Formats: sequence, structure tokens, C-alpha cells
Amino acid sequence: MENFNFYAPTQVLFGEGQLKNLPNVLEIYGKKVLLVYGGGSIKRNGIYDAIYRLLPDADFTIVELGGVEPNPRIDTVRKGAALCHAEKIDVILAVGGGSTIDCSKAIAAAYYYEGDPWDFTQNRGLVKEALPLVTVLTMAATGSEMNGGSVLTNPETNEKLSTGGISMIPKASILDPTYTYTVSKWQTAAGSADITSHLIESYFSQNAGASVQDRLAEGLMKTVVQYAPVALEDPTNYEARANLMWSSSLALNGLTGRGKLGSWSCHAIEHELSAFYDITHGIGLAIITPRWMEHVLNDDTVAKFVEYAVNVWGISTEGKDKFSIAKEGIQALKDCFVSWDIPMTLPEVGIDKEKIRLMAEKAVEHSTIDQTAYVPLTADDVEAILLNCF
Amino acid sequence: MENFNFYAPTQVLFGEGQLKNLPNVLEIYGKKVLLVYGGGSIKRNGIYDAIYRLLPDADFTIVELGGVEPNPRIDTVRKGAALCHAEKIDVILAVGGGSTIDCSKAIAAAYYYEGDPWDFTQNRGLVKEALPLVTVLTMAATGSEMNGGSVLTNPETNEKLSTGGISMIPKASILDPTYTYTVSKWQTAAGSADITSHLIESYFSQNAGASVQDRLAEGLMKTVVQYAPVALEDPTNYEARANLMWSSSLALNGLTGRGKLGSWSCHAIEHELSAFYDITHGIGLAIITPRWMEHVLNDDTVAKFVEYAVNVWGISTEGKDKFSIAKEGIQALKDCFVSWDIPMTLPEVGIDKEKIRLMAEKAVEHSTIDQTAYVPLTADDVEAILLNCF
Repeated sequence: MENFNFYAPTQVLFGEGQLKNLPNVLEIYGKKVLLVYGGGSIKRNGIYDAIYRLLPDADFTIVELGGVEPNPRIDTVRKGAALCHAEKIDVILAVGGGSTIDCSKAIAAAYYYEGDPWDFTQNRGLVKEALPLVTVLTMAATGSEMNGGSVLTNPETNEKLSTGGISMIPKASILDPTYTYTVSKWQTAAGSADITSHLIESYFSQNAGASVQDRLAEGLMKTVVQYAPVALEDPTNYEARANLMWSSSLALNGLTGRGKLGSWSCHAIEHELSAFYDITHGIGLAIITPRWMEHVLNDDTVAKFVEYAVNVWGISTEGKDKFSIAKEGIQALKDCFVSWDIPMTLPEVGIDKEKIRLMAEKAVEHSTIDQTAYVPLTADDVEAILLNCF
Repeated sequence: MENFNFYAPTQVLFGEGQLKNLPNVLEIYGKKVLLVYGGGSIKRNGIYDAIYRLLPDADFTIVELGGVEPNPRIDTVRKGAALCHAEKIDVILAVGGGSTIDCSKAIAAAYYYEGDPWDFTQNRGLVKEALPLVTVLTMAATGSEMNGGSVLTNPETNEKLSTGGISMIPKASILDPTYTYTVSKWQTAAGSADITSHLIESYFSQNAGASVQDRLAEGLMKTVVQYAPVALEDPTNYEARANLMWSSSLALNGLTGRGKLGSWSCHAIEHELSAFYDITHGIGLAIITPRWMEHVLNDDTVAKFVEYAVNVWGISTEGKDKFSIAKEGIQALKDCFVSWDIPMTLPEVGIDKEKIRLMAEKAVEHSTIDQTAYVPLTADDVEAILLNCF
């Protein structure tokens, strides 16, 4: 186990009806609130109205920033920061999924930064102070509700890059599983794939001996495998939505990643797909992950893949060689994504071969996967992985 | 899954050599430090000297409170609070295991309380503000380094009772696994049993559907089962000590307990053993837990015991009835404790039958196990469980 710092100070209010505590949570920070949200689903499912019933009565003033994009754009961050200054905002309230929360984090830090917030993606050290952020989560996926990370897109340069900082960690997050009842099958599957990917990225790492982290990751993976089909079949199943939602937060709050080494491979590759084609992040991850696994399976990695196959998928080892067991584990993951109705090829999500080489090169350029990934990947490796997705 | 609040804001600095960051961590709160420790093992293993090399150079002033008892006494809390006032302490530095940290928490809160700190055990609502607390952990066991709980003993009344509050949560905890290299076999086994017990107490609860919590608990239980024997055999095995140490914190920071129902049975019973006989807490838990399991195994609970047997111990279900599987799981736990050289009867730890009835009655009086435990327990039940420990 590597040395690490673990810091996950977000106060989580979990369960049906927790929104009633929103005024108490917000008023610690002030009465002038920037309400950030996405495409307007919160107006259809009643959360928007509920907030307007709760906050004005308690003497809050709400300023709105709606229309945050699914891959949030740097322009929206600039606009949000300007709004915070113009309206003298005390606290940001992000209501939505990972995109809305990521955008809000960047706004919160941009408020205190004199340069352009895109700089944060080039140098995390520039993220200093930030406005306090409270979130109301409406989708189980990115885990952004309990960490300091943020992924931003610059459409002018076709770049999707991450940043983050301690000051960006939400002060509190309200996790009401019933708010995900209206999440579509497509987004439920994508979110579950995203959670799974976060766990896999940390699980496969160069260092051994981080049993705590790996056993926790396996537990969360098994929970997602158990409950994603239930939520897909029965969208208002509270137990399924609750387990997926809490898994999403714990899959990326440091619990399974701190103490482990290495940069993330599939996310680095997927960010290029989303940057060039604006596809759904979790779907891109589901397509890439098994092909990445096949590509990096070798004599050095096979033991870890056996551990994965046995502990997550319960695959029996009797009478089988290591590589057969490992491949069964990878196949189980692929079958699982197929059973969630995820299209498992790039053409199905509108990606042809034209930009494959360019995206492969950018994936290496924008990350450190050629040096510090579980198995270091060159642009040729990434190209081969992507070509296996056809 | 029940509604819950999760809040674990302690900054954890994990790994060998993290003590070097102590001045940075402390100086956020001030320069006048109350150093709290136990029987002096920190003087033998070098931590005491290391602190005196680090802090005075960085202009800290240290006031000492040594000699905290293994079951920390309310008198020591009173003494510590008085010392904080007399010396105008800014921050408390607890260096030790759960007892030292629990005592320090109570001192931190007693500083702001005008009445007697024993009141905290009667009414948690009395715990308001507290002095900031930073810990350096020297034993993997209680999890006190990452939560707001505290267990205190009043020898005058033979009472060992718990209290707690958000303000008591350590601001930061330094977890260096090498500091546990000198922990004796006895204490290593007791600590590992304590971690195991925390996980079991939450695992067996009346509500279903908390898969996240249960899968995480299973993962931590498997880690302890894997590494406790390694640490007992090879006390300076870093990997083993690291996994046990991080398990101890995560087993009781809310991760496996929040969202689950019910009061803890074995702890309520054990606290009476420790109050009357001052035995090692983890050893008492190891003796009681399998007997409690046998006592509460019935038609309603057998499914949960099967889940435990299969997921933690890998017991095969083939051709067996539910109760056989459940009993194999309980036997596996008992065998495990025996393999750690834990004496598994009360006479072996110096407890005869004289006060069994009295302790059984007190266990019910001091807790809510007769109403809200997994299986509610009367004094007769507790007496039967304790008599099975002979």
C-alpha cells in the first residue's frame, strides 16, 4: 500500500425526503444562492419547484444558471463565475448529475481566480480558494458529489480535461434515490458503467498489498452488478436506486483509489471520444474497458485479472489455467454491459475510423498513460484498443 | 437502506513517515499543544522523541498528560480539561490507541462544558463545542481516530459508557503502520477482534437492502482475516500492519453502519465485563460474539448468517441446509479467534459466575438491546450468552 492522504469531508444527507434539510445546510454559508442545473429535467421531476418552495420562505435569494451541458463547457464556467460576481453569490447549489456538479466546482474556484478558468485544466495548483458548494444529486454516476474533481470541455480545441482541488469538494450533498427514478434506461446503464469504470481503474494498479482498497472495490462492483439490472427493469425500485447512488459516491471519494498507484487508462481514452464526438461518457467507458482489459492481459497482469474474475464474478478456477479464468472475467464484464443494453461498438455511437489515430495520440498527449498507467500505453496501443471496438 | 447522515471529515495522513507533516497539521489550530498519551509505550518506541524533535523547533509549546488508562477513566478527563484551562491549550494531540483518543475527545468537549463530563455519557446532547483534536495512532483497533465516539469508565460506579458528538471527530489523524510494529501479539489479536466486532455489529441488522454497507463490511472482514495472522506471525510486516490499520478506521467511520438499524449487542455486553473486571475490550468481544451469534440464530435470522458464512468465509452451500451453513460460519469465526491465540472462555480472563446476573442486568439497563438490537435481548438472554462463555 502506498502512502496517501484521504480527505472526504462532504456531509452526505442520504435518503428520501432529505431535501427538507437544504435550508439548514445552505444557511451556514449565506443567503444568496446560485442555482446551477442542466437541461431542465429538474423542472419536470419536481425538484426545481420543491427548492422554490423551501428557499424563498427561509429568506434565501436564488439566482439561476440553467442549461449546463452534458459535457460541461468552459464557457458556461466563465459565465457562472461572472454571475457570481455580479450577483454577490454566497454559495453555489448544484442540482443535477456529474456535469452540473463539475461545472459548479469550476465556477466556485473561478470566482477567486483572476485568469481564465481553462488554466485549471493545465495546472491544478491554480485552484486555490472556492465558493462553498452544496449539491443535490439526480444521477448515480460520476461520484462528483463527494470529491474535488471536475472534468471540463473546450469545444474550440476539442479538449476534455480534468482538474480539481480540495476547495472544490462539496460541503454537503443531498442524495435522495427517488430523484433518480426518472433517469432513463440509457443514462442508468451509462451511470452504472461509469461507477464500474471508476472502480476498475483503481483496482488494476501496479502496486500490490492494498487489500482494503481492493476488497472495498469488489464489494461496490458486486453491488452495481446486482442492482443495475433491477433499476433498469424497475426504475422506481428504491433499494436498487439507493445502492447505485451510494456506490457512485463511494467509488470515487478516494476510498478505493488512495494508496494505489498509476494513472487511469480508460478514462484518458474515453475523454478523447467525448471531446471529439460528445458521446455519453459512461457508454464510451463501457465500450473501451473490456477491450483495454484484453489488450493489457499478459503474464505480468494475469494474476490480478484472476483475482478480479474470482472475487467479482465468482468464476470457478477448478481445472482451468490462469488465462482462461482471466478471460472469463473479462467476458463476464462484457456480457454484463450487453445485458444493460449498452451498444458495445464505436460505430453504434456514431464514431467511424477517421479520427481514431488522432484521438489515440491525444489520449497519450493529455495524460500520463504512456508512463504511469497499469500497463503503459503508447498511441499505437490506444489505436489498437480503439480499433478493437469496431 | 435507512436514511442516514454520513460525515467523516478527518484528514487521514496514511503511511510510513507521515509524522513529518504533524507541525503543518497542528499549526492550523495553534501553538499550545496538550500531548495526551497512555502508559509510556510511545517513549519506548521513539514516537515521543520524534514529536519533541519536530514540535519545539516549529515553536510549539507542549503540555503533557500521560498515563491514560486502557479503559480511560472519567477522572483523567476531568484532570485533562482542567489542564487545558490552566495552560490555555489550543489543540489536543492524542498519541496512542483508542483509549487515549477517546479520553482526549472527552477532554476536548469537557473544556467547553461547565458541568461534570460524566454527564456526556448520560446525554450526548450536552456535547457541543470541543477543542480541535489531532491524533497519531499506535494501534489498529477501535476506529476512534476517524469518528466522534468515546467510551469512558467510571470506576466508582463500575460503569463503562459511551458518548460522542460531531465536534469530537479528530481534525486529522496520522496513521503510520510502522507505529504498530511493537504492538504485542495479545493486543494485535484483541485489536483485530475489535475491528471484526465493529463490522459484525452493523452487518447483522434488522433492515435489508443495504448492500453497499454489507459488501464493504465483508471486504474489510476478509482483509482482517487475511492479515491478522500475518501480523501475529511477522509483527513488522508492513503490508499486514497497513491493511489492519486502515481497516480499523474504515470499520467504524460510518461506512458500514450508516443506513443500517439497531443497537449493538456484543458491545453492550462487553462493556459490562470491562466495567466490572477491566479486561481487554477486544478479547471480551471475541469471547462473546460467537456465543451471541449462536443465541440469536433462528428462522428469522438464518438467511443473514448464511450470507455471512458464504461471503466472508467462502463456505460452500452445496447439499447443506441453511442452519448447517450458518453454524459453519459461526464456527469459522470461533476457529479464527482461537487461531489468533485468544482465550475463548471467561474463566481464562479471570471472570467467574458471581457477577454474571448483575452484568446481564446492567447490559440491558445501560443500552437499548432489549428493544432495538438485531434480536432484542433481555437480561435472561444476556445471562444465557454469558453462561455459554464458560
